[in-house]
Amino acid sequence: MIAVTLNQESAVPIYRQIAEQIEAAISGGRVQDQERLPTTRALATELGINRLTVSRAYAELSRRGLIASRVGSGTWVTPSGIASAGNGAARSGAPRWPSLFARTPERAVTSGIASSVWPQDSDDAISFAWVFPDPDLFPVEALRRAVTRVLRKDGGRVLGYGPPAGHPPLRRMIARDLQDRGVSVGEEEIIITSGSQQGIDLVARALLDPGDRVLVEDPTYVGAVQVFQSYGAELEGIPMDEEGAIVELAAAAAARPRTKLIYVMPNFQNPTSRTMSLKRREALVSLAASEGLAILEDDFGGSLRYEGIDLPPLKALDPSGSVIYLSTFGKKLFPGLRIGWLAAPGPLAQRLIRLKAIADYSTSLLLQAAAHEFCAGGDLDRHLAKVVPLYRERRDAMMTHMREHFPAEASWTCPDGGLVVWVTLPGGVSAEDVAMRAEDRSVLVGRGDLFHLGHRRRENLRLSFSQEPPKRIAQGIRILGEVIKERIEARPSTRHGSENPLPLI
Amino acid sequence: MIAVTLNQESAVPIYRQIAEQIEAAISGGRVQDQERLPTTRALATELGINRLTVSRAYAELSRRGLIASRVGSGTWVTPSGIASAGNGAARSGAPRWPSLFARTPERAVTSGIASSVWPQDSDDAISFAWVFPDPDLFPVEALRRAVTRVLRKDGGRVLGYGPPAGHPPLRRMIARDLQDRGVSVGEEEIIITSGSQQGIDLVARALLDPGDRVLVEDPTYVGAVQVFQSYGAELEGIPMDEEGAIVELAAAAAARPRTKLIYVMPNFQNPTSRTMSLKRREALVSLAASEGLAILEDDFGGSLRYEGIDLPPLKALDPSGSVIYLSTFGKKLFPGLRIGWLAAPGPLAQRLIRLKAIADYSTSLLLQAAAHEFCAGGDLDRHLAKVVPLYRERRDAMMTHMREHFPAEASWTCPDGGLVVWVTLPGGVSAEDVAMRAEDRSVLVGRGDLFHLGHRRRENLRLSFSQEPPKRIAQGIRILGEVIKERIEARPSTRHGSENPLPLI
Repeated sequence: MIAVTLNQESAVPIYRQIAEQIEAAISGGRVQDQERLPTTRALATELGINRLTVSRAYAELSRRGLIASRVGSGTWVTPSGIASAGNGAARSGAPRWPSLFARTPERAVTSGIASSVWPQDSDDAISFAWVFPDPDLFPVEALRRAVTRVLRKDGGRVLGYGPPAGHPPLRRMIARDLQDRGVSVGEEEIIITSGSQQGIDLVARALLDPGDRVLVEDPTYVGAVQVFQSYGAELEGIPMDEEGAIVELAAAAAARPRTKLIYVMPNFQNPTSRTMSLKRREALVSLAASEGLAILEDDFGGSLRYEGIDLPPLKALDPSGSVIYLSTFGKKLFPGLRIGWLAAPGPLAQRLIRLKAIADYSTSLLLQAAAHEFCAGGDLDRHLAKVVPLYRERRDAMMTHMREHFPAEASWTCPDGGLVVWVTLPGGVSAEDVAMRAEDRSVLVGRGDLFHLGHRRRENLRLSFSQEPPKRIAQGIRILGEVIKERIEARPSTRHGSENPLPLI
Repeated sequence: MIAVTLNQESAVPIYRQIAEQIEAAISGGRVQDQERLPTTRALATELGINRLTVSRAYAELSRRGLIASRVGSGTWVTPSGIASAGNGAARSGAPRWPSLFARTPERAVTSGIASSVWPQDSDDAISFAWVFPDPDLFPVEALRRAVTRVLRKDGGRVLGYGPPAGHPPLRRMIARDLQDRGVSVGEEEIIITSGSQQGIDLVARALLDPGDRVLVEDPTYVGAVQVFQSYGAELEGIPMDEEGAIVELAAAAAARPRTKLIYVMPNFQNPTSRTMSLKRREALVSLAASEGLAILEDDFGGSLRYEGIDLPPLKALDPSGSVIYLSTFGKKLFPGLRIGWLAAPGPLAQRLIRLKAIADYSTSLLLQAAAHEFCAGGDLDRHLAKVVPLYRERRDAMMTHMREHFPAEASWTCPDGGLVVWVTLPGGVSAEDVAMRAEDRSVLVGRGDLFHLGHRRRENLRLSFSQEPPKRIAQGIRILGEVIKERIEARPSTRHGSENPLPLI
């Protein structure tokens, strides 16, 4: 049995105190291999703290391989935890694994999405943390019918390997959709990927050597940052304003010798929710063309527009062939399909298809065929017609309640699409601090500093309105407003938090 | 319109003559962007040759991005084909893509699975070429029911993101199955991958830097070779005999400083179909432990055994924790699921999970849940009970007809599992030559030289018996016997073939 004693006055966060004491017990030989830990509920009750705080401690230990857990079976100490914590002697002849590891930069594999807390940990908390569409709105039955139809129609054929580039009817449908939006692209230039994350990874794998430079919006999507870093690339941030990335400020970095790629999200950028203006789009494409650079245009949420009109994709403004377009069904439909796509200029498309074959041979043909069937049968349009008004309503609820409950010193974006709002906190109030206090009150938010390169700026929160119905949005925003006001009272803040925190998708 | 003239006496293969003349027409400006090419059937009829030969020419042009094709719409010249063939001027400002490419070794992206001909090209030929299970034997209806059950039971939950490491019930099931086979492994050490191809890629990504050395059986699976090469690793072959890799011959290479990994397929090795003896398994694990190396044990076809008993996995013989185990549903069930798994020692498992998150965040939760449902409901066992006797019958048919039709100078393995037979041709008869002549008679085979490192040995064929029922096996083997006998007459051979040929999975 592990005894945990908390010091409420300590600058060390509560969850970290718990994790450290459990680790000390493991490395000190005070627990056995496979020994059970108390449930999060039991330990939270015993210590008189929120269960989420215990979950967070367990999640940290689990990420480090010291403990493992399973719904219904609790949490236990792993054999490798015994071996790796503290003095556990390595088994004779075992490889010293870290000495065999590739020279992948550690920052790429020790933070961000590679180590983020899994949302199931969050239980019944009100979550503004994850940019997930709402599972309650997923078209489950329509998808089931699409799967049934393709299996009945095509039988075993859709259970075999598909071509690495993707299922031809799906590639064709995507090419046509892009053509309808003014993009000059052939179906042979479409590559189906396992989610947009793989699209980013394949482009990086095709283009980046250690020391190459990638320009990104600052702040930006952490999952992309980690991909680029994992290939040893250096990142340079482009500051943003209401019109998106300030392209003029990128000119010098674009001209430097090892700059190869510019990664941007022109629509409803993650995390700022800002949409790049037409003028900026044109300037960016022109900059890339004049410097001979590639642009990766990540249009992850393009169909989720609540008002206004769509601006043309960068790829439609690109006579020079510099732009690689990326999108996904993940946000507009559901993430579990893991189907994204790239539209890349011919010579690069050939390269990407070959790298796709090397990386995982091909994306599930069954899912590709089902996605095609789903879209071709009109289910995607029906789904969007249903969810766009609901998400608009949630956005509006969040706006209304922020105006009511947030202090006058705070400000925020009002996005015309996407799933998040970007909040700027009152001066001297840190996002980390607000996030942890809110979590203690069962409200989860995204810490803005995590999206900034080098985590240099600390005054933003990313709030997703997609996961909760309006009533819970009202409740969560009220609590969050209280927390922010308390932190205004308490500034300057003295409490310091985690390096490995919530959530990055 | 493109005029093609064939020289039947030329040492240049017919398909290559066709491809070269079409490319010349494109680069010479004699065809338009989007211009249609004749169908394979029409051109074959016009030239009086086999349609497969035309398909092969088109496939080569398509791989190079010069043309594109689609079932039902024919084949046409692509815009990028116009631009990249011959003198087509690059559009102003377009990135010179190859100058932006990463320094991935060209050999990794210009051959093997990255460029292999897609099997749909093969139409009604008798195929011994692909190590695919037979789509007619896929349990389509059982899978449909499994998908329906998980969607009804779990609804939107299985359409959301899953944890990067995999769906917990599936990881647990896989861990238990391995435990039943004597492997000491915890479910926290299981990582679900998008097919076994991704398993190989993630292990390589975790371990290999340019210049590191990987030992592989020679011959071996080309898809693995390409992964290792794509990370800049050097490969060293371990010669094989009837007992599998000759471990003594690997000792010197294992001891060299930059050797990190040994990649083997102990059961029904691809392409030789040989199973590694227990003595060799023990010797290999002991060698890795003494040198501090990792072993990647690829057990892609472990459940497809027709007689004899299973030998323990390397991982069950490994007290030192050197072995990473890899398997998949691809061969035993159907490839279209794209679900494989790794079982890796704790510290490496943590690293692999993080790299998985970077590479594609996670494998489709819907497919993982469906696979778990399928197996937990007994459908996998039922499926294996049905297909193992059928594949045994096909193997036996191939054996019988080879004995009848192949010349006495040829020899072959009689595998006790898996899906292929490894043939050694009579001296002076080249696999390339036999493969092309057989293809002219609509029989497709795997050329053994492609599986040998550096393509150094030319006397083997890989014949898969999984794709055809016994009657077509009889017919194909009879034709193949005739071709081999003709080539014995004609040796030494004068005809030379392709560098980019059929098929590597």
